[in-house]
Amino acid sequence: MRIDGRPTRTIRLAEDGWAVEIIDQTRLPHELATARLESLADAAHAIKAMLVRGAPLIGATAAYGMALAARANPSDLALTVAYNVLHATRPTAINLKWALDEMIRALGGVPEDKRAAAAYARAAGIADEDVAINSAIGDHGHRLLAGIWAERRAKGAERLNVLTHCNAGWLATVDWGTAIAPVYKAYDAGIPVHVWVDETRPRNQGASLTARELSWHGVPHTVIADNTGGHLMQHGLVDACIVGTDRVTANGDVCNKIGTYLKALAARDNGVPFFVALPSPTIDWTVFDGVADIPIEERDAAEQTHITGKAADGSIVTVQVTPDGSPAGNWGFDVTPARLVTALITERGVCPASPEGLKGLFP
Amino acid sequence: MRIDGRPTRTIRLAEDGWAVEIIDQTRLPHELATARLESLADAAHAIKAMLVRGAPLIGATAAYGMALAARANPSDLALTVAYNVLHATRPTAINLKWALDEMIRALGGVPEDKRAAAAYARAAGIADEDVAINSAIGDHGHRLLAGIWAERRAKGAERLNVLTHCNAGWLATVDWGTAIAPVYKAYDAGIPVHVWVDETRPRNQGASLTARELSWHGVPHTVIADNTGGHLMQHGLVDACIVGTDRVTANGDVCNKIGTYLKALAARDNGVPFFVALPSPTIDWTVFDGVADIPIEERDAAEQTHITGKAADGSIVTVQVTPDGSPAGNWGFDVTPARLVTALITERGVCPASPEGLKGLFP
Repeated sequence: MRIDGRPTRTIRLAEDGWAVEIIDQTRLPHELATARLESLADAAHAIKAMLVRGAPLIGATAAYGMALAARANPSDLALTVAYNVLHATRPTAINLKWALDEMIRALGGVPEDKRAAAAYARAAGIADEDVAINSAIGDHGHRLLAGIWAERRAKGAERLNVLTHCNAGWLATVDWGTAIAPVYKAYDAGIPVHVWVDETRPRNQGASLTARELSWHGVPHTVIADNTGGHLMQHGLVDACIVGTDRVTANGDVCNKIGTYLKALAARDNGVPFFVALPSPTIDWTVFDGVADIPIEERDAAEQTHITGKAADGSIVTVQVTPDGSPAGNWGFDVTPARLVTALITERGVCPASPEGLKGLFP
Repeated sequence: MRIDGRPTRTIRLAEDGWAVEIIDQTRLPHELATARLESLADAAHAIKAMLVRGAPLIGATAAYGMALAARANPSDLALTVAYNVLHATRPTAINLKWALDEMIRALGGVPEDKRAAAAYARAAGIADEDVAINSAIGDHGHRLLAGIWAERRAKGAERLNVLTHCNAGWLATVDWGTAIAPVYKAYDAGIPVHVWVDETRPRNQGASLTARELSWHGVPHTVIADNTGGHLMQHGLVDACIVGTDRVTANGDVCNKIGTYLKALAARDNGVPFFVALPSPTIDWTVFDGVADIPIEERDAAEQTHITGKAADGSIVTVQVTPDGSPAGNWGFDVTPARLVTALITERGVCPASPEGLKGLFP
């Protein structure tokens, strides 16, 4: 998407044609810094230290990490080491492993002197495929939003209000994002869309990342406390919710950032459509009951007790908000039952959040 | 309640018998500081600068402000000025005005040389009446919790999990609190109660004040993001929700801190009882539809974009969490429809959140 009018991806080749440039997301939202990756070690560090985040972007970074490794040493042994190093950065990330397997597959039959070029080509392909998937999600979601906007406009509305939670925007992908792709498509098509951005405690991905990317692209938005969405929906100030997801079960249950379930309940209570945008690799065909069977990660309590931001002098400071000695709990995700989801938006189209709906699109 | 084992009220006479001591709540949760009020001006400042907050505590502080004024000058003119000065600190606070009117009523027929003593006596009476009301709420709520605990214990539970939102504890009153009074009574009676404390963005009253007072008294608790309660309820980790309220309508709708409605929805979806604790002056008999007819205050967006806490060096620092240029919205309250409220807990007993329920207790 655009930063100050200039189309930008979260990961791309440097002008020299071999190094890889990423947006260092640990510096967001207060600074836009580009990190230059020149080696396997640089790529592994970028993933592990969360300079990049979001499953698709992590996958693309791992793919380019394999290309950097192949450029330095294209031997079978070196590539095996590279695979293991990159896989160890996030051992449970499915998309990361998929990208690494894909790179090995692409390089398997290639002579050593042509492996670097083949690796760069396949990494670029993986990045481009992510962009194409998200663009397709954006097109399908844009049609939904355009339909809602036509109704609202006929009733005198002046803007289309979309609520989102966490960051499922282009910063989590190579471009477009998942949940925010329909918003960008709608905005670029001239729909006067406005986004309510849930702060998304405790890691504040909404307040920092979603607000930042919407602001860069020029999309009107307002950051709100996670507590606010219900009140807005009661008063007709939300026309649709769109969120991303980390995992969708075979029956359509949606595992996403903690707090998503509360917004889905409010949407149902107020007749607001609740959409979930996802690339199809996010579907876990082996799980049928999300609440019972998806284990929810408990994270470091310090993410809840401490907050990092920009002090008045411009320095980045971490402050403690809870009193000394009060423990905190930090669950990363929750599960929104399929019954609360109006529709799933995938790269193949829109379907009900049900086994039949999913099987209809992905036979 | 207790601070390090010592029974403490939020407002009390100093040892000299005439100055008034309060906990300076602007220094919480990181410092326990006592402020000494020696004049009408001190009392007005304490209310205006939010050294005290919570309707009952503001009322008691205003009452003692009248006593300090009467000690300095007991003339009709001086007391009229004092009334106006204190009323202007929070012109819309109903409890504040009630306390001031009550002081004027108590001093009306009293000769000037006896007014100071009468004012101190009535101010002490107002404080004691608040304590008695909250203690009664605590007793009624304790019986509800004891019943739930008996059921849970029979099924092998090891603790009783109560979720609360915002701060409706003793720091908002003279002692006991409203929503937390039943928790203190249950804890003191030996029920192994544990409190999930909603952080309560954007002003963090849960993370700072509720956590602080529970910790002082020794009640086990865990601070969580406001996003977390739904997940906990889905997994059977919440046995009851108890919140306070700023206003209950004649039909039982509950206006309380923003985000309360979302927790009530989750409680309903998971069969968790949702209780609201209130002193009867909180009932607004003139309003019958809370969502439609209660105007919701929009507050300074800086409360959402900036957070204050303790830096690593112990200093208190305010940091900005949103990017420059991203606007924020900040609604202070929402309305939970009566249909989502299991019961109201008042000083007269427990009743359904309905016109019949309220009229039954308050004919």
